[in-house]
Amino acid sequence: MSARKQKLINQPENILSEMLQGFAAAYADIVRLTDSGLIVRRTPKAAGKVGLVIGNGSGHEPAMIGLVGEGLFDVNVPGEIFTAPGPERIVEGIKAADRGAGVLVCVSHHAGDLMNAEMALELCQMEGIANVEMVVLYDDISSAPKGHEPERRGTAGLFFVWKMLGAYAETGASLAECKALAEKVRDNTRSLAMALTAGANPITGETMFQLPDDEIEIGMGVHGEVGAGRHKLSMADATVDLMLPSIIADLPFAAGDDVLVLLNNSGSLTLMELFILYRRVAERLKEADIRVYKSWIGQYATTQEMSGFAISLCRADDQLKQLWDAPANGAYLKMVSQQS
Amino acid sequence: MSARKQKLINQPENILSEMLQGFAAAYADIVRLTDSGLIVRRTPKAAGKVGLVIGNGSGHEPAMIGLVGEGLFDVNVPGEIFTAPGPERIVEGIKAADRGAGVLVCVSHHAGDLMNAEMALELCQMEGIANVEMVVLYDDISSAPKGHEPERRGTAGLFFVWKMLGAYAETGASLAECKALAEKVRDNTRSLAMALTAGANPITGETMFQLPDDEIEIGMGVHGEVGAGRHKLSMADATVDLMLPSIIADLPFAAGDDVLVLLNNSGSLTLMELFILYRRVAERLKEADIRVYKSWIGQYATTQEMSGFAISLCRADDQLKQLWDAPANGAYLKMVSQQS
Repeated sequence: MSARKQKLINQPENILSEMLQGFAAAYADIVRLTDSGLIVRRTPKAAGKVGLVIGNGSGHEPAMIGLVGEGLFDVNVPGEIFTAPGPERIVEGIKAADRGAGVLVCVSHHAGDLMNAEMALELCQMEGIANVEMVVLYDDISSAPKGHEPERRGTAGLFFVWKMLGAYAETGASLAECKALAEKVRDNTRSLAMALTAGANPITGETMFQLPDDEIEIGMGVHGEVGAGRHKLSMADATVDLMLPSIIADLPFAAGDDVLVLLNNSGSLTLMELFILYRRVAERLKEADIRVYKSWIGQYATTQEMSGFAISLCRADDQLKQLWDAPANGAYLKMVSQQS
Repeated sequence: MSARKQKLINQPENILSEMLQGFAAAYADIVRLTDSGLIVRRTPKAAGKVGLVIGNGSGHEPAMIGLVGEGLFDVNVPGEIFTAPGPERIVEGIKAADRGAGVLVCVSHHAGDLMNAEMALELCQMEGIANVEMVVLYDDISSAPKGHEPERRGTAGLFFVWKMLGAYAETGASLAECKALAEKVRDNTRSLAMALTAGANPITGETMFQLPDDEIEIGMGVHGEVGAGRHKLSMADATVDLMLPSIIADLPFAAGDDVLVLLNNSGSLTLMELFILYRRVAERLKEADIRVYKSWIGQYATTQEMSGFAISLCRADDQLKQLWDAPANGAYLKMVSQQS
């Protein structure tokens, strides 16, 4: 049950630059790569739209390079592997996204990401760049107890924020409105992850953690952070039954609620397994009279080739449903307008 | 470098039905699951459109259940794991797709798929169902020499046929025109795959093949069929350099040609690796003065969690470019209309 020790790369020190060059070449109609290694939207909207920026450590592809585009982010600032980008590069990203209506910096809650974003905002103040705000995002119920939500980590459920905030900014909402919307989606989202096997760090080749063949970890973070404990590997339905009630109880999601569901593949779980898992999620939600509005299953925030997945639920009112359905065209998140 | 022996499923005998139930529940806005286990398009076009049907063994998800929808297939007939569906079920699929303008059955060239499709067409004749044709599709240059193209296997490059044929049928093209278009795309497409590590059969748990840690197989089929030989694992660029010239020479693709490029992830290769590989593909094509019109990188025809990928090229004239860009809305293949 070991992970691959050797990856199909060239020199490890060139991983990031070569990855960005390849990605930008493949999706040249959607993004461009700047000289300083930012991924920016190829066709930014005319002035009047709040600029959306996110920085993150690399190694979680398609997050976040694949989520730049129409109805999504304007700029992504990719850092080194599992390492937040520095404040100067975030400032550069803010400048690239600024079209006169303000810029919102989204921060997935991890110590490094938060510190660098805060420093970037201070640099903006010093440089006199006005109208820049940040919003800190978190969703992982295993990383801090209920009542301490702002201490929780950001994981795959932020997907809902990315999608809906992107759509909302496109409507011409103000900076304050965009920030409030991001907080609203965050505050209605809860996630819990599990892993069966680790991925390998692409630079060092080292497996990120070790688990016995017959055990799983519940509450695993997106860098392999330890979660809520180990359990014996059981069947798919039993695994969902172990995870879903905690997620439902945390918000709590209640009978009559409409929800969006994401099953995020951490890397090498097969889609077959995810569909089987989803079947049980849908069954359990139905039993609880929680209504699924739409679902999405795929690789969004990965941890290299880790075998595992996360369940994320987002309670959606009419506004959020509409933002969910709005068109999007990132390389790795596309939403097609409904047919008439 | 072993594959996972244990998968996150329930009883192995229920894999197919539970997978289909989960998939159809998650994407109920796009597809529905019939009582007999077919995946059919939720919103079929009104009469006048040729029906497009494909059958396949399961285990290659998202192929083909994820490619049913607007601008794609009307019906998918999923078989058991790595096993073509029987002729009676294909006939049922043909009936479900028939809206009075004829039905085209697409067959990815493997012995079982071909035999069952041929028997299905005979059954249709016996039942008096007129206006049904089949087209046999192949693209893998490693499975038979040049000049023997019809003996080659169908692999990931059929993606180009699926996408473009789906768009073409949507325009109201006749059955004969649809078949000719599928053959045109096929005859302009070439693929070659490689693998580093095997996936595990989800029923038996057995690893599909064994490769030493430091070797790769070039020309691997979508069920782990042996290909063009083993090589020492080398760096990403050297791997592309080993594969791409054979693909180019086979058609051959020539200076001045416009091509579409697909890098298909067989399962657990990371997107980071694929982007690095793509960078070299783009570089080499540029050197050969072959112009990339659009590219696509992702999981389309997988072999469970196999680590590997395929390079597919399709020479595209104006008609094919237009069909490529046309909107599509399958659960796992979405093409957003170009913004004005």
